[in-house]
Formats: sequence, structure tokens, C-alpha cells
Amino acid sequence: MTKKKSKHPTLSEVAKKAGVGTTTVSRVINGGQRVDPQTLARVQKVIESLGYMPNQAARILKGDRTRSIGFVIPSIADPFFSSCAEAAQAIARAHDSLLIVLTTQNDAHAEVESVNVLLRHRADGFILAPGNSQSQVLRTLLKRVQVPVVTLDRPMEGMPIPAVVADNFAGARMATRHLIDHGYRRIACLTGEPTLYTLHERIKGYQKEIETAGLEMILDASIKDYRSAEYAVESVLAAPNPPDALLTLKNSTTIFVFEALQKLGISVPERVALLGYDDFELAATVRPSISVVQQPIEALGRTAAELLFSRMLDGAGAEKDRGKMVELHTRLIPRASCGCRPPQN
Amino acid sequence: MTKKKSKHPTLSEVAKKAGVGTTTVSRVINGGQRVDPQTLARVQKVIESLGYMPNQAARILKGDRTRSIGFVIPSIADPFFSSCAEAAQAIARAHDSLLIVLTTQNDAHAEVESVNVLLRHRADGFILAPGNSQSQVLRTLLKRVQVPVVTLDRPMEGMPIPAVVADNFAGARMATRHLIDHGYRRIACLTGEPTLYTLHERIKGYQKEIETAGLEMILDASIKDYRSAEYAVESVLAAPNPPDALLTLKNSTTIFVFEALQKLGISVPERVALLGYDDFELAATVRPSISVVQQPIEALGRTAAELLFSRMLDGAGAEKDRGKMVELHTRLIPRASCGCRPPQN
Repeated sequence: MTKKKSKHPTLSEVAKKAGVGTTTVSRVINGGQRVDPQTLARVQKVIESLGYMPNQAARILKGDRTRSIGFVIPSIADPFFSSCAEAAQAIARAHDSLLIVLTTQNDAHAEVESVNVLLRHRADGFILAPGNSQSQVLRTLLKRVQVPVVTLDRPMEGMPIPAVVADNFAGARMATRHLIDHGYRRIACLTGEPTLYTLHERIKGYQKEIETAGLEMILDASIKDYRSAEYAVESVLAAPNPPDALLTLKNSTTIFVFEALQKLGISVPERVALLGYDDFELAATVRPSISVVQQPIEALGRTAAELLFSRMLDGAGAEKDRGKMVELHTRLIPRASCGCRPPQN
Repeated sequence: MTKKKSKHPTLSEVAKKAGVGTTTVSRVINGGQRVDPQTLARVQKVIESLGYMPNQAARILKGDRTRSIGFVIPSIADPFFSSCAEAAQAIARAHDSLLIVLTTQNDAHAEVESVNVLLRHRADGFILAPGNSQSQVLRTLLKRVQVPVVTLDRPMEGMPIPAVVADNFAGARMATRHLIDHGYRRIACLTGEPTLYTLHERIKGYQKEIETAGLEMILDASIKDYRSAEYAVESVLAAPNPPDALLTLKNSTTIFVFEALQKLGISVPERVALLGYDDFELAATVRPSISVVQQPIEALGRTAAELLFSRMLDGAGAEKDRGKMVELHTRLIPRASCGCRPPQN
């Protein structure tokens, strides 16, 4: 294979001409720390004279890959998705690619717009967490997309697009079973957005385990902020036959419910136990510490990115992965709020 | 001004042809919830027959703006920057524009690559939080950039690029002064990354106030994770003349130090007081609640985006904003860890 000489000077060419190592050139590019002033000046001169600029323009002009992948998620202020993105970014970096993050607030219009941005930019592929698998325009667009796509956290049902998801159904069953094993008999499930794929699966898991145990299902799916959480907690606990345990189905719901319980002066786990879905920063530090179902967040982001790169780099692999659903396991982290440990001082 | 008829059908045209309102078409695009099956089928048929696709391609082909802006930040797993991004995104959305987030880990190479991606994509402008204002390649690139740029959280020193920053120096002075007013006389300052613009400014603020009060400066800038925080806390507290108060200069440092103090069984504020820079989720919920300097995070993201759009939309405004530095105020949130309130149960 012959390789045409690029008109764009490389880092090595700069290093050679300046009579220094590539690490030194890299340091100069990054601000010149730990480089003596004389060397700094010389390298900067060479950079200028050669017109060196570390960019991909040459490669793109030759029709090669843009070395960028898209990451289309509902929100980056949600620690679940931001941690997924960091993990995906590490994989992208290892493949010398950029990760372009676009957010959608689960809105199908924004999803379609985001995918169009990525296509115009000629991204080499993208990862998508679709808000609604049934969105017609999104489905139509994805059918026409020529680059590899992987969905994250939520599948596109009935489409040949590989998906990397957590075992939401099994995780919620496990959590419910854990509370039943503690002896709780009135377990309320608190959540918001019950139509979202992940939460729908978790509600089904809770329901299945409750029914298997012959208990009564108590579901409140109205929680969207602190205020609605406080209202829900007050309401379920004021009922004639109040719950003895609460299962909260996502990160923010757990935090809002815990704050509400603390504000209302309700002792946990004595009066009501609490088990949350999603681990969170400080879950082990608050008092009582909060028992949770921990999702394999980094693994989700990493696996989705690895699958995408394998589809991009390996045509055969791409074919064999069509419609593949990778389901990663969650695990239970027992702390004090479910009753597993005596409350700390 | 005449307007050429676009070949791309609009949402209104779909609505008209299907005999429904635009809201209904929007609902169909978003998955068809709350649309009766008959209407759903009809609208889907019209969408297909007209080849409707909500994209910007037509506009771009006409040479108009791409209606996208870049947001180049060190990390999206850092809640400071992810909250900035959400706020900037709301402004972008209000201007019918997409926010494209790219992350750099404060690496100048990644910054230059990111800016190049945005230029290739023909972004209308971008917001950048530079890791190192002195990076030569970044400075060279920014000099050549034709679209409006605003820096966020950190300025490009000596360049005519408007910057939106928090008053780091004044915030750290205020925090140090608050601890002095409580009667603490040995105030240690704990941080990492002391060369970063924001942290450097905060260290200077702490130093200024300590010197003004005739006290001794105690600085440990070694904290980068939980382990180093625990080591730093043990070290400073084991010294012959240990501190009676700790000032932590950023979010993650505060959390690590608080966790270390709790693990080591050191009572706060009795044995040592704690005041953190950056508010964080659960800061009011942990025991003792943590007093903090709160940065105007949303306002930083929002103001940077507003300034960028004003530069993009108004040539004169752009000229008058060159080199402008907008400094937003931080405020002190006194809670229990500094000694302002009796520790809660």
C-alpha cells in the first residue's frame, strides 16, 4: 500500500525540524509548561514556519473518516447520562475519535434534528438514547441512515439496531424481593415518567414480584420534582393502611423522596424503609445511608461505544450485531435505609 | 425581501393537507400519543407522501446559518459544566439552535480538535472554557476563527474575546472572611489543580484575606481524588498546630474532604469547621449540612449563550463586546458546617 505525502506537516516533522522530541512539541502546543524558554521559542517558530495545525481537515478532504461519533442523549445534567458519556468518550479517545454530545430532552423533533446535525457533519456513527421508540419520524430517519448506530439504555423496538441496556425488569424484581425478604408487606413504588422504556420495565419487575408474593401493588407515578415527591410521600403515608417500605425507581426520585422524608421527620427505616434505583454520590454518606440498585453505568457507555466502533471497523461484525440486545446486570448495594445495617451515629 | 419557495414541505403544509392542526402533526412525529388511530394513520400517510422531514438541510444549502453553536468544556461529568451546558442549551433552544457539546479534559490538543470540528460543521459560533489561556496553538487558531466566540468560566488573557466568569477572587475572600468572623484563626485551604485560572484566583483571594488578617497561610493543593483528600486531611490535622477550619476550593474537593472527615470520625464544626466552594446536591441534606460559596452556575451558562447570540445577531454589539469581561457574583450559603447553625439531629 503506498501512502501519498500529506501536505499537512505532522507533529513528528515539527519535532524533527526543531531538534526536539514529540513530547516537547506536545507540551509547547499545550501551553509550554515544563519547556525552557529557548526551546519554547524555537518550537513555536517551527510551528509557525511549517504552518502546523493539529487538525483532521486533510484526512476529511481525502474522503476518510471524520473520526467523530455522535452521542445523542436526553440531558447532560442527568448524572446517569453524563457518566455514560464520559465512559463512551474514553473509548472514542482510544480510537482517536471525538465524541459529539447532543441533547434532546426526550423530544423526537430534537432527536431528528440532532441526527441530522451528525449526518451533515459526516460523523462516522452515533449512539442514541431514544425518548420514544415509536416516534415515526425518528424510525423513518434511522431506516435511511447509512452509518452504524447503537442505541443506549433504550432499544428501538422492532428495528435492526443493536441496543445496550441494563436489566431493568430483573433489577426491579431483585429490589422488590429484597424488601419482601426484610419482612415488609406493603411496598409502595414511587416514580415519574412511567411510559419511558426503562421505568416501564422497572414497574413491570416490581409488579411481577409483588404479584408472585401475593401482595398488593401500590404505585404512585406522579413524581417529577421535590414538591410532587413531598406530596406523594405525605399522601401514601397518610393512607389508612400505609406502606412499610418505599421503592423509588430512579436517581432523582430517590433523592427527592429522601429529602421529603427527612423534612417530614419520618424515621428511615424504622417507620418506612427506602430502597432506591440508581446509586448516587453521597448515598453512602447521608444518614441513614441509602440502599440502592446500582446500574452498570460506565459499562453501558463503554459497551455501547465499543459496539459502535466494532460495527464501524468491521463490516462482518456489523452484520452479525444487527438487532443484538446487550443486557448488562445491575446489583444491589445494601446500606442502612432498607434495614440491612443499624443506623449509624 | 422576497422569499423563495422551499422545496422542503413544512409542518404547516403537512397539517393543512392532513386536515389537522400543527400540534397534532407534532404529536404524530413525537410518537403518536393522544392521537386517535385513524388520524395517526392519515397524518403518517401525508408525511410519507410529502417526504416531510424536519431538518435544516434546506436552509444550509441556501448558505444560511446552520443554527448550531458549540460548547467546548473540560468534562460533562462535572456538575458545574453540565449545569452550565443545560442553561446554555435553553438559550440556544430559544434561538431555535442546537447546542453541540464537546469535551476536552483541559487538553489543548482536544480543544483545537474540537474547535476544528465546529468550524467544519459551520457552527454559527461557540462557547469555550479554555484549560490553559497560554496554549499557543489554541491562541493561533482563535485568532483565525471567523465566527463569534465567548469564553466561559476562564478568559483567554490578552485576547479580544469576551469572557463570562464568576468572581473567584472575591468569592474566596468572602469565604475566608466568614471563617475569620467565626473566630477561626488557623484556616487551611485545600484544593487541586492550583494552576487552573479559577482555582488560582480563589487561592489568591484566600491568601489576600489571610494576609489582611495577619494570619498564617496553610495551603495543600494535592487533592485529586478521595484518597489524596483523606491523606491531606490526616496530614493537616496531625500537624503540631492543626487548623481549626478548612476551606475547600471546589465541589469534588469539598465532597471528598467531608467524606474523609466523616470516615475519620472528626466532628464538624466542633473540631474543625468546613466551608466549601460550589454548592452541590444534598449539601443541605447531609449532617452537618455544608456551608458553601454558591456560584451563579446557571447564570454563567445563560449569560455566555446570550452574549454569543447577541454577537452573532448584532454586528455592532459584537464590536462593542470585544474583550468584555462579565463577572458574576457568588454568594455565601451559611449552613451548619461552618458553625452558623447548631448541628441538626
